[in-house]
Amino acid sequence: MKWISDSRILIVGLGLIGGSYAKGLKRLGYHVTAIDTRQEAIDYALENHIINEGFTEVTEEVVSSADAVIFGLYPKVFLEWIERYQKFFKPGTMLTDVTGVKSCIVYKIQDMLRDDVEFIGSHPMAGREVYGVENADENIFRGANFILTPTEKNSPASIRWVGSLARILGFGRISVLSPEEHDEMIGYLSQLTHCIAVALMTCSDNEHLVDYTGDSFRDLTRIANINDVMWSELFMLNRESLLKYMDIFLDEFAALRDMVRDGNVPELREKMKLSTKRRAYFNRK
Amino acid sequence: MKWISDSRILIVGLGLIGGSYAKGLKRLGYHVTAIDTRQEAIDYALENHIINEGFTEVTEEVVSSADAVIFGLYPKVFLEWIERYQKFFKPGTMLTDVTGVKSCIVYKIQDMLRDDVEFIGSHPMAGREVYGVENADENIFRGANFILTPTEKNSPASIRWVGSLARILGFGRISVLSPEEHDEMIGYLSQLTHCIAVALMTCSDNEHLVDYTGDSFRDLTRIANINDVMWSELFMLNRESLLKYMDIFLDEFAALRDMVRDGNVPELREKMKLSTKRRAYFNRK
Repeated sequence: MKWISDSRILIVGLGLIGGSYAKGLKRLGYHVTAIDTRQEAIDYALENHIINEGFTEVTEEVVSSADAVIFGLYPKVFLEWIERYQKFFKPGTMLTDVTGVKSCIVYKIQDMLRDDVEFIGSHPMAGREVYGVENADENIFRGANFILTPTEKNSPASIRWVGSLARILGFGRISVLSPEEHDEMIGYLSQLTHCIAVALMTCSDNEHLVDYTGDSFRDLTRIANINDVMWSELFMLNRESLLKYMDIFLDEFAALRDMVRDGNVPELREKMKLSTKRRAYFNRK
Repeated sequence: MKWISDSRILIVGLGLIGGSYAKGLKRLGYHVTAIDTRQEAIDYALENHIINEGFTEVTEEVVSSADAVIFGLYPKVFLEWIERYQKFFKPGTMLTDVTGVKSCIVYKIQDMLRDDVEFIGSHPMAGREVYGVENADENIFRGANFILTPTEKNSPASIRWVGSLARILGFGRISVLSPEEHDEMIGYLSQLTHCIAVALMTCSDNEHLVDYTGDSFRDLTRIANINDVMWSELFMLNRESLLKYMDIFLDEFAALRDMVRDGNVPELREKMKLSTKRRAYFNRK
């Protein structure tokens, strides 16, 4: 499927990310249909011109009219959906997703999927600390990273297709990783950081911190406002990588604690110099 | 001393914060003099109209002409400066500082200080991850928190004076804490967060993280770009409070790790709900 303007896109799961895809794609002129179990999500999206049409039921008529389907579902619901409704896809339909874990999803989907449709996993590295299509905003994609996770089952055409999707939505760097590399990376960059934010926020029950804080605590706890259903599911599905990085972090932090306790200023300064050097890689963006 | 427009302000230590005070006060019409050991800092500040006059040497003429002095020095240098040059103050001079630790500074300064001048400790909760007067920006104070730490030795007039300083510079919430309360708060809100950022950044030597990351890792490591000389000194001067919070955080984080390891989703979700609830106190700002 090429990204030509009469392509019909189906978004399954009209949450923050699904809704932001819908908004961006509709603005670019594509025909966008959505399926979501929440009638209010569909109503909101229609009233705000985020989609062309929307449904709360999955029917052959709706699914088979799509040239491409983007799944914005929680991992387990995503697997169940494919199992139950893949019979409705028309031959040649291109599928991708926005799921935050990959190894446990991509292979299973590809194994169970019909031979005449193709699924390629992808992960837009963008989000907000609010949820639902009511907060959808296609500008969160502008310049953000985008990771696609092809396997041996994917065609070069599907890789070009999902890369084009990322480009037209305004993503910046588009990277190709294996599902395993993706999960390792995300265990560190995303899941570990969320664990840290939660642990930092639960260290104190003082309700007046907001009166004394500077920007650093505010920045480190922004993501402590967390969707517990979604993130606990993502953690469980990537437990090995996450645990690996939680343990590395525990060791690093405990070493720093010992340096403070022992008054070991030379080693403390070395660690700070190292962190400053490594953080500098981020300055080019 | 009242904040009347012909007041002469002396800034000792023209770094990022001292420079930002200078810039804001000069713009408000005060006569601002600076002392800094770096000739380039003085030259830059003069060329960019951040100060009215500047010196690299401490002389009686310069110090005695000030109605108020704001110290932007590292803690140890600050103590030495007072010891050596307090003889130059004219009677009635008001002194404050911007130092990030208080118990170990405030009492010592007040104990050694002449009876005819008054020092009241304060801490502007604002900063940037860059240093020097070259990056001075009085807008970092707008709406930021400001903490003042009076002791029994301070007069009500000095409390009003430093509160006025904060107000005219645009600070938001102005709080009064004891030096000990301040240090406990800062051990948690500022120093612990910097330790976390450093430990998180040093977990991996992958130079390509920037291509895969979303905003959360970027936010949590912004302050991993850290001035090792200043922060190691601040850590050592507040070691007890910092260690207390490092240990609380280690316990919280290790408990979270065990929940992930054990697949204890109910407790994991409880922790996330708690962190979301506590983070909500910050939303009003």
